[in-house]
Amino acid sequence: MPDEHDVIPMRRRFYRQLYAGAWPGDGMSPLNRLVCLLVIIAATVAVLDTEITLRNRFGDVFFGIELLLFVFFAMEYAARVYAAGEDPRYRGVGGRLKYMVSFWALVDLLAIIPFLVTLGANDAFVLRLMRLLRLMRLARLGRFSEAIDAVISAVGERRYELLLSLLAAGFLLVGSSSLLYLVEAGAQPDAFGSIPRALWWSIATLTTVGYGDVTPITVLGKLFAGMTAIAGIGLIAMPTGVLAAAFSDALQRKRAGTGRSSDETTAETPMPGERHHD
Amino acid sequence: MPDEHDVIPMRRRFYRQLYAGAWPGDGMSPLNRLVCLLVIIAATVAVLDTEITLRNRFGDVFFGIELLLFVFFAMEYAARVYAAGEDPRYRGVGGRLKYMVSFWALVDLLAIIPFLVTLGANDAFVLRLMRLLRLMRLARLGRFSEAIDAVISAVGERRYELLLSLLAAGFLLVGSSSLLYLVEAGAQPDAFGSIPRALWWSIATLTTVGYGDVTPITVLGKLFAGMTAIAGIGLIAMPTGVLAAAFSDALQRKRAGTGRSSDETTAETPMPGERHHD
Amino acid sequence: MPDEHDVIPMRRRFYRQLYAGAWPGDGMSPLNRLVCLLVIIAATVAVLDTEITLRNRFGDVFFGIELLLFVFFAMEYAARVYAAGEDPRYRGVGGRLKYMVSFWALVDLLAIIPFLVTLGANDAFVLRLMRLLRLMRLARLGRFSEAIDAVISAVGERRYELLLSLLAAGFLLVGSSSLLYLVEAGAQPDAFGSIPRALWWSIATLTTVGYGDVTPITVLGKLFAGMTAIAGIGLIAMPTGVLAAAFSDALQRKRAGTGRSSDETTAETPMPGERHHD
Amino acid sequence: MPDEHDVIPMRRRFYRQLYAGAWPGDGMSPLNRLVCLLVIIAATVAVLDTEITLRNRFGDVFFGIELLLFVFFAMEYAARVYAAGEDPRYRGVGGRLKYMVSFWALVDLLAIIPFLVTLGANDAFVLRLMRLLRLMRLARLGRFSEAIDAVISAVGERRYELLLSLLAAGFLLVGSSSLLYLVEAGAQPDAFGSIPRALWWSIATLTTVGYGDVTPITVLGKLFAGMTAIAGIGLIAMPTGVLAAAFSDALQRKRAGTGRSSDETTAETPMPGERHHD
Repeated sequence: MPDEHDVIPMRRRFYRQLYAGAWPGDGMSPLNRLVCLLVIIAATVAVLDTEITLRNRFGDVFFGIELLLFVFFAMEYAARVYAAGEDPRYRGVGGRLKYMVSFWALVDLLAIIPFLVTLGANDAFVLRLMRLLRLMRLARLGRFSEAIDAVISAVGERRYELLLSLLAAGFLLVGSSSLLYLVEAGAQPDAFGSIPRALWWSIATLTTVGYGDVTPITVLGKLFAGMTAIAGIGLIAMPTGVLAAAFSDALQRKRAGTGRSSDETTAETPMPGERHHD
Repeated sequence: MPDEHDVIPMRRRFYRQLYAGAWPGDGMSPLNRLVCLLVIIAATVAVLDTEITLRNRFGDVFFGIELLLFVFFAMEYAARVYAAGEDPRYRGVGGRLKYMVSFWALVDLLAIIPFLVTLGANDAFVLRLMRLLRLMRLARLGRFSEAIDAVISAVGERRYELLLSLLAAGFLLVGSSSLLYLVEAGAQPDAFGSIPRALWWSIATLTTVGYGDVTPITVLGKLFAGMTAIAGIGLIAMPTGVLAAAFSDALQRKRAGTGRSSDETTAETPMPGERHHD
Repeated sequence: MPDEHDVIPMRRRFYRQLYAGAWPGDGMSPLNRLVCLLVIIAATVAVLDTEITLRNRFGDVFFGIELLLFVFFAMEYAARVYAAGEDPRYRGVGGRLKYMVSFWALVDLLAIIPFLVTLGANDAFVLRLMRLLRLMRLARLGRFSEAIDAVISAVGERRYELLLSLLAAGFLLVGSSSLLYLVEAGAQPDAFGSIPRALWWSIATLTTVGYGDVTPITVLGKLFAGMTAIAGIGLIAMPTGVLAAAFSDALQRKRAGTGRSSDETTAETPMPGERHHD
Repeated sequence: MPDEHDVIPMRRRFYRQLYAGAWPGDGMSPLNRLVCLLVIIAATVAVLDTEITLRNRFGDVFFGIELLLFVFFAMEYAARVYAAGEDPRYRGVGGRLKYMVSFWALVDLLAIIPFLVTLGANDAFVLRLMRLLRLMRLARLGRFSEAIDAVISAVGERRYELLLSLLAAGFLLVGSSSLLYLVEAGAQPDAFGSIPRALWWSIATLTTVGYGDVTPITVLGKLFAGMTAIAGIGLIAMPTGVLAAAFSDALQRKRAGTGRSSDETTAETPMPGERHHD
């Protein structure tokens, strides 16, 4: 490939700007900062666009912004595919195809397509689903965040404790629903006529959310509900203790590791298509 | 007993498969894993079976699954009684009877019987109770879980602190109910006409569940209710601190102890019929 | 006083049985255990007695139990006054009068009097207040509980932090009420027409109780309410952290101090009329 | 300036009384204590004054108190401007003007002005805003509180962790709103017809406030709502852990630093117009 020598500088510049681990400086590259900002704007517009009153007044503005963002993200996607060639794994046409089916490349693609589909869609549910898929752009923010990886790995280390908490929560949920079903089904068949129905009340009580749309009215039902509410405190204390410790660990480790070189950081959290070759 | 020599290998194989402490490998034996899975399926079916809309559509499927599971659990119960003879305490017919009245054997039996009774029952409340008893199968999961024992023992060590928390909770509950009864009974006799009635509001407020089905309407009532809600934060802080520390201790000890042999583990958490003889 | 020599053994026996610090053995004396139990029974009856449906059915039973308990507590009060003479501070008639105006002796008296007053009272509010005063008996449990003193002293050491939490809570309460008053007063004058009215909503939101009897309906109101709900998490985190640490400290110190002699324990938590002379 | 020699003692006395760091004794100066008390009284009157029923009965009393407080705060403001000359930065007329545009001097001014404006205002919203501005007096308490600075700096050190918590909260809020919008928009267009509308439900659920004014009614909606409520526990655990640790750190540092001289304390928390020259 005799012309590759001329292309490299340009491709390499894109590669450094677009791939988190390849940026030689601290933090994010200027282009990635712009992408982040535009992703947040796109998500905000997608959220506001679902509200009919705003859509009626600002529909054209929303469409204009979405069109511009679509063009930008489509160009960014093309640049990413083009720059992926810097990575020895994604060289050539075959390599590019291999890159395009990698997890994050698919997320990028999913973030652009909905715009095209909405233009033609008509059915209410499909439209709603499409608008949601546009929110997938938020998932793209994930690829820039090492902190989230640190938290995930810390939580992962305590998966055993959290599983136990979830198990205890499951037992309490099924147990309290069953008791309420036993004593309240007669008085309120709509709300407590079966264990799955009683689960709705049970989950609202054990998490201390307490909507109050469904509450027991019999004396026994209130007694068991009171016991459930108190058990809920214990249910919350368990994962709170485990998660608080996990978060604290993760962030301390993260903080202690701020002196590391960016190379080591990349080595620790490898993502498909993110690694740069030396 | 000249034929015992031939029987032993088979009985011992069942014993190792069915009794948690007797399994020579790590974790659960394959048969116990299957039992666990089927217990979860049986419980899920029992939960869904209480919902009349699902019962009408999938009643036959549910019955079929329950019949199959009944046959399996009955066979497993028989195998357990048979294999219990491996334990010197449960040798012979007398030993087997002694085993059958042990706590976990009774739980196993209770988990099978309801199926037979539901076939004949007719009264709504009895039927509901029977369906609930089928959920007792979930209790069987308890016998496989050493982690739960670790948590229970850690909580047990702090029973003094938790008792104190419960005492404080009791005082706050009775105190706030009494105050609200004093100032709101006139305005809302149905909800605050007596201290036991006011307790329902009080427990919903102190646990921060806050259903909102009953709320004070007088100025003084709202003032005391606000103070109760703030006191509720302290009420939750106390057991949360104690329980979070207890869980953290228990799980750290559990983690530190993963290198122990299975013999030591069994010795620490003896259950009736679970110990194997060497 | 030539007859004092004969009286001492009896008076001293009462003194040892009735005064927490004077008991030579571990824990509570048998008589104090009985008093505790009867106080709990009396409080339970007083609570149940406020419910008109129970009163109509079991009114006579309640009256009988209250009469018996009144006789017992009156006798106990007399025995206490009599035995107080063992303490050099309360010798003679003057000393007994001095004892009778001490804090805990007044609590004891307040716990007996209501019974006599209820017999004659007729007005609904006065009656309710009297029934409440009977609950004062629960306050008597306080004199036996050293653990509560340990918790109170630990909380007292952190009064500065808790004061700061309360101050922050006060600012948040007034601030969020003011904002909601500003934007919701026009739409819901009954619920948000003034800052004191908005406080009711504000306290339910910041403590995450969330009754839902009053909720903002304007867009700006919902926006500020959402911010208030999130600020509420921080509000709860502050005292939870402080209190959890305080409880943990108090109970650890308490546990570490179980080897102390009862003399030292008494010296640490002196109450009027509780100290015995050596 | 030949008369400055005579003026200094008086001005210096005011300076020491009014500026927190200039007071030679421990804690607050007597004049600042009085100012604090009057600020609290003024804020309480401003709060009560918004309630029409109280205003009708005690309107004249409120006006009288506000008039007196206005006179006092106006005089205090004048004294502060006058005494600011002790600080070399605020000498002369130019220095005084420079002081008057400093942050805390503007807060002081804002706390007096509303009284004058309310006299002429007529529109309901403007009046409400003015009454709110009077609450700004509470902000003045801020300048006396070093403890609050300690907490703010401790929280500031963990701004990274808290930002991450807020980010996670944002993702969960948008995610759960989107899911509920997808499955509930058809059944309840008013409450879940768009993502911004669903956010109101989402924030009430994730913070476990749970007003219950809006709850899902479809089966899928309830399923996702239950998952959201459980995720809310994790959402709360994260900032609770971080904030509890931050508060604990801040107050321990504060406590450890009580032996410091007042000079060092001032040096650590410099505020405009608060520093005294030596």
